[in-house]
Amino acid sequence: MRAVDIIQKKRDGIPLNEAEINTLIQNFVRNLIPDYQMSAFLMACYFKPLSFQETVHLTKAMMQSGKILHLSFLPVPTVDKHSTGGVGDKLSLTLVPIVASYNIAVPMISGRALAHTGGTLDKLEAIPGFQVNLSLSQFKNFLKKSHMAMMGQTPEIAPADKKLYALRDVTATVPTLALICASIMSKKLAEGSESLVFDVKFGSGAFMKNLKEACELARWLVQIAKAFNRKSVALVTNMNEPVGSMVGNSLEIIESIEILKGRGPKDLIYLTLHLAAHMLLLTGRAQTKAEGIALAKEAIESGKALTKFKTLVQQQGGNPHIIDTYSLLPKARFQKEFQAPQNGYLCQINTETIGMAACLLGAGRETMEDSIDPAVGFQFHKKVGSPLQKGDSILTIYYNNEKKLSEVWKLLKMAFTIKSSKPKKMSIIAKIIE
Amino acid sequence: MRAVDIIQKKRDGIPLNEAEINTLIQNFVRNLIPDYQMSAFLMACYFKPLSFQETVHLTKAMMQSGKILHLSFLPVPTVDKHSTGGVGDKLSLTLVPIVASYNIAVPMISGRALAHTGGTLDKLEAIPGFQVNLSLSQFKNFLKKSHMAMMGQTPEIAPADKKLYALRDVTATVPTLALICASIMSKKLAEGSESLVFDVKFGSGAFMKNLKEACELARWLVQIAKAFNRKSVALVTNMNEPVGSMVGNSLEIIESIEILKGRGPKDLIYLTLHLAAHMLLLTGRAQTKAEGIALAKEAIESGKALTKFKTLVQQQGGNPHIIDTYSLLPKARFQKEFQAPQNGYLCQINTETIGMAACLLGAGRETMEDSIDPAVGFQFHKKVGSPLQKGDSILTIYYNNEKKLSEVWKLLKMAFTIKSSKPKKMSIIAKIIE
Repeated sequence: MRAVDIIQKKRDGIPLNEAEINTLIQNFVRNLIPDYQMSAFLMACYFKPLSFQETVHLTKAMMQSGKILHLSFLPVPTVDKHSTGGVGDKLSLTLVPIVASYNIAVPMISGRALAHTGGTLDKLEAIPGFQVNLSLSQFKNFLKKSHMAMMGQTPEIAPADKKLYALRDVTATVPTLALICASIMSKKLAEGSESLVFDVKFGSGAFMKNLKEACELARWLVQIAKAFNRKSVALVTNMNEPVGSMVGNSLEIIESIEILKGRGPKDLIYLTLHLAAHMLLLTGRAQTKAEGIALAKEAIESGKALTKFKTLVQQQGGNPHIIDTYSLLPKARFQKEFQAPQNGYLCQINTETIGMAACLLGAGRETMEDSIDPAVGFQFHKKVGSPLQKGDSILTIYYNNEKKLSEVWKLLKMAFTIKSSKPKKMSIIAKIIE
Repeated sequence: MRAVDIIQKKRDGIPLNEAEINTLIQNFVRNLIPDYQMSAFLMACYFKPLSFQETVHLTKAMMQSGKILHLSFLPVPTVDKHSTGGVGDKLSLTLVPIVASYNIAVPMISGRALAHTGGTLDKLEAIPGFQVNLSLSQFKNFLKKSHMAMMGQTPEIAPADKKLYALRDVTATVPTLALICASIMSKKLAEGSESLVFDVKFGSGAFMKNLKEACELARWLVQIAKAFNRKSVALVTNMNEPVGSMVGNSLEIIESIEILKGRGPKDLIYLTLHLAAHMLLLTGRAQTKAEGIALAKEAIESGKALTKFKTLVQQQGGNPHIIDTYSLLPKARFQKEFQAPQNGYLCQINTETIGMAACLLGAGRETMEDSIDPAVGFQFHKKVGSPLQKGDSILTIYYNNEKKLSEVWKLLKMAFTIKSSKPKKMSIIAKIIE
């Protein structure tokens, strides 16, 4: 079947079979189907959404476009966590050492900051010396030795996804449920983990702006995992304010270490414990959520998780002394308080705007070619629901480039809604989909 | 505005303004917008059709992507005819000399055979020596000298259309009203004719399978012409059987000359006189349709039109002796009768299948790279409504390649529906849209 016939079939809403989807993806990866045909196909998928079954076929074809890791050589269970991306979302940094404390391997292939969202790899690279560009054999070796490995996307894993994503990004075909699912799942399945915890974020700082869309994505992810015989659960979580207090790469490393030291902001502790509990549940290390939470707490309180984190930093070439001496991390030259312009309650934070402001400071990147300034970011002193007196510092800006400050200031001024009545506080975890 | 933002706007059904459409087309022609973005845009246009106003902008941008002919140097009115394509449609060959007999210039840029439809250029090239690859200055010179010029698409006229069409062809985005209109009109407007007669065909042998679609296309063409201050009319005509008796390049040249000699099949005479009448009406040479028809008849009966045709053939390097000696045209080595398998009435001809059978013989081409055999084709002895006795010849096959015959035979067997009751004869001209 010619590519144009497959495009036409999709355009007319006729379901594609596994062979057709395979042909499309295999030939695309081999450059036998040109980008211009694939982008027409992707736009057809926007208007005639792929069914669940078609999405499973697509996920499989994309997964099989590259290497598939087999982790059965590990004598321990495996679990990974995937977040759909947010602002101040540093949970991978706390979850990997906590869960790995319990003889569970966490094979984690992460992404970089893009648009208003941060990226785990950029955070890790704020640690002097930390290497995220591992080979697959290094990745496996680390998993064997320490049960932890955190690396960047490699060209060997699901190359179809990289090629497809680049095309979607410039053809207005990113926001398509089936394509989002296939992109996430092809990589996660190829990574070889037996079980997966999804942190599907919704709200102003997430890609999914409302709860309904996020729940739909969560359901699809869990169902696709099931179709491939993986255990999974999805937590649909609130991204209407940054997670924790810190936004920015060095700052988030510090905050993650604080959590592992038994300190840190409440919301981040809460989410860490719950996500860890679900990872422990899926792997059978905990029988109930309460037990999972207790185990996660115990890993922190005993110092085991912090020791694991030190091992992780050392094994990937990072300077472990940063754990005790934060001043060894990149530090911004300047800081400035952003103060409340009036009395009242902090009612809303446009978290995407916060992410964009952080990006402007240099904490993120607009295009994949931009470089990152690990030192810059924000430290929040107030959260949604906090009472404010005019002049109170809402956040501290850490910055290096004075020229960017006025633009960042403008964005911050738009980001906060202050009202006289106290807002209803939303729970962090809105829904759990199993 | 970035290309991706324009694609997204169209995807979301937000009307594009003139500047946005201009940017898109201009940058596409300059290769600043890659094919993969344009094809996503085209697919978005399939699902979120361009409005009439957007189509006018697109037509203008495509027209302005190349040279625009100005024919005001001609001291006579100008008119062109455009057909949406059919089987046995040789009307350009008769109309050009008839209309040019009345001191009217007919600047005609035509196409080639594609899929099941024939092409005027391929028909002209059946005449030994005839050159259709003219430069624009030759084209203008011929118009000045004889008021006639028939040439192929040049890269200077509406290059955006050529690039866009190639992309639409392989991305399942051809059948889109607005894109069809912009493709036709950008070329016809750039060609510089003051007035345009459209022959919009519908039925089994046309691209528009039903009357409703054809009428919609006809209305859009006439309205776009109006938006650019061109006089126009559209005749919506029946393509449920081949026009005239001949299908094939040499054969259609012969049939056209027969018409100019005052002979030939009735339906072809009828359509020739009516289309010519509308061309004479638009240019003001006739005041009523009846007068137009009388003038067209007079051009044939007086021999003026035939003389004009001879001039046309000579000026473009063709051998004028073919007019009196048909055997100078390429002639097929073999012929075979296709006989009625039963008694009854010829009720339906699947004209697309006839076109495909002619294409298989070598009269047309499946892809633009195929070469044409000018000698081959069909001569019909029966039309829809003809009574048939078993064994009557429905048509004569003229062929050179004996190997193709069995496949052609199979198609022909599928093409005819014979029933015991006489079918209602449809009129050739179904609708006139002014």
